[in-house]
Amino acid sequence: MDDRPRTKARKIDHVSFVVESVDEALKLYVDLLGLAVIKIEESELHAVRAAFLMAGDVMVEVIEPLGPGPIQDFLEKRGPGFHHLAYEVDDLPEGLAAADAAGFRVIDRAPKPGIEGGRIAFLHPKSTFGAMTELCDKKEFEPE
Amino acid sequence: MDDRPRTKARKIDHVSFVVESVDEALKLYVDLLGLAVIKIEESELHAVRAAFLMAGDVMVEVIEPLGPGPIQDFLEKRGPGFHHLAYEVDDLPEGLAAADAAGFRVIDRAPKPGIEGGRIAFLHPKSTFGAMTELCDKKEFEPE
Repeated sequence: MDDRPRTKARKIDHVSFVVESVDEALKLYVDLLGLAVIKIEESELHAVRAAFLMAGDVMVEVIEPLGPGPIQDFLEKRGPGFHHLAYEVDDLPEGLAAADAAGFRVIDRAPKPGIEGGRIAFLHPKSTFGAMTELCDKKEFEPE
Repeated sequence: MDDRPRTKARKIDHVSFVVESVDEALKLYVDLLGLAVIKIEESELHAVRAAFLMAGDVMVEVIEPLGPGPIQDFLEKRGPGFHHLAYEVDDLPEGLAAADAAGFRVIDRAPKPGIEGGRIAFLHPKSTFGAMTELCDKKEFEPE
């Protein structure tokens, strides 16, 4: 233990997978695993269709691209699979400052509003050992 | 809802990442995120060094290859990153039978002993939309 700032993750908030078809993927997540569906919705802004499911107190996001954008790029480049894992921290700006100070590559210098409320920001997978990592908190997003 | 058999996942048991160096990865998982270390150990059998950490009630496994084997193959082929996500089910043989009946590609036809106790089996990522998926239960492994 030392006195470096820490994000002190409370828990895993959610895990996100990119798929070719949300409807097909629900055969795994709902029909087989029996996860509870929170909602299935389309976002024109992000050009995706997404299912939000619960496994215990962790959300599972399953995302399908509906057109050009980062998710379609991901699917074309990497194929379907893991996209990112999100940890809930007490305070996102503190967490980002700690990540930056520790040399992690912070994609979002300032918090963004999360799709489910709260605030989110991503760390680049090149600096997080191949695993895209999101930090989020449950505080209200306030544009600067 | 229908009468197909379901695994009825209780929760996410763990998520597993392959890395080049466990010690380096702990800069993210322990120094930054502050996850609790359960143990760090080497397995000659699996030719890996692994750290087991807790984020809430979900375990995070970070695995480094120590020599030839599936994890080294994975790292060479895919690079560091997500390896698999494990769901806890009530009864693993029932879960595997349900997965098989639903057309998922079951890698382990019979349960194997888990590294942390209990029983585990994998579903092939080709049939789980790119995400290697493990099913596990907390029952004692009994060789047939």
